[in-house]
Amino acid sequence: MRVRHINPEGLHRSPAFSQAVVVEQPTKTIYIGGQNGVDADGKVVGPTVGEQSRQAFRNLATILESEGATLANIVHWRIATVAGQSFDEGVAAFQEVWNRSDPPPAITVHVVASLGPDFLVEIDAVAVV
Amino acid sequence: MRVRHINPEGLHRSPAFSQAVVVEQPTKTIYIGGQNGVDADGKVVGPTVGEQSRQAFRNLATILESEGATLANIVHWRIATVAGQSFDEGVAAFQEVWNRSDPPPAITVHVVASLGPDFLVEIDAVAVV
Amino acid sequence: MRVRHINPEGLHRSPAFSQAVVVEQPTKTIYIGGQNGVDADGKVVGPTVGEQSRQAFRNLATILESEGATLANIVHWRIATVAGQSFDEGVAAFQEVWNRSDPPPAITVHVVASLGPDFLVEIDAVAVV
Repeated sequence: MRVRHINPEGLHRSPAFSQAVVVEQPTKTIYIGGQNGVDADGKVVGPTVGEQSRQAFRNLATILESEGATLANIVHWRIATVAGQSFDEGVAAFQEVWNRSDPPPAITVHVVASLGPDFLVEIDAVAVV
Repeated sequence: MRVRHINPEGLHRSPAFSQAVVVEQPTKTIYIGGQNGVDADGKVVGPTVGEQSRQAFRNLATILESEGATLANIVHWRIATVAGQSFDEGVAAFQEVWNRSDPPPAITVHVVASLGPDFLVEIDAVAVV
Repeated sequence: MRVRHINPEGLHRSPAFSQAVVVEQPTKTIYIGGQNGVDADGKVVGPTVGEQSRQAFRNLATILESEGATLANIVHWRIATVAGQSFDEGVAAFQEVWNRSDPPPAITVHVVASLGPDFLVEIDAVAVV
């Protein structure tokens, strides 16, 4: 069994945390920390839920791809959005990235008072390969 | 190791997601997506936290039973309720279903601004068999 | 494979729940339920986010130590704080306990409407040893 903290290329690198953790047993489990609409330079990509959701999904995919996985490998996930934002834009971003023929597990969506500064959406996930 | 998305009989079936995911290694882990007070027809069962909590617990139990497990197999879970609702009704629903002689792990309860439309409570969980 | 509910010395003991659950396979996974700023007597330690965060981190560490682990073994975690509180105090408490040379996985922080009575912060976590 190995536990590796990963920071794949294409994601913002922070000295304060790693983006995801990989646990390899017989199975490999990938624990992905809260992803926001932040690009590889650490900048928020835009002021709308749609833009931020699309980027957060890209970040999830980048992490998963770096471990030979895709969004279809997610087994548990949670989305938080900030109160007063458009739910529909988030759903639209989700529908763009998700494969309808291989539906994901049920999502937990919480509408919260706020997240980090300028963040309108945050997604964390567990994937198994 | 196998990963199976499941939609047990007795739960609402959605083309958009599966209700839970089973991961079998030497151990079987069941990741249950956010369950709401929604019946097998996909309808919200009523306008109170008490009714919705009871139904969400029934949905959890249905999923667990379909994999040979019970609520006692839960190892991690989270409950979200919408601000302004009766906390006591949710606690009462919980006390009806939980076995006092086999107490559950500590729950994380978040009171959030909102959940999906008409949802007052949402529960997700991880169980190990 | 064994699943054990644990209530380590130094933590509040509740008849209603266990503080954490240990799953041993080839790997040991520790699922830690929502920890608050509550001492071993079950009392809230103070009215500020700083005090409560420090205590919640101590509780996490106590649970992990009872299983031969430390905060560095955490693979997934979530912090919720109540709206209107000082984010900076929570961050300061975090920086006191965390080892900068061994950064943690990305945290999901949700600012919620409320938690249990008098609770300003709640942390849950999954650790792998």
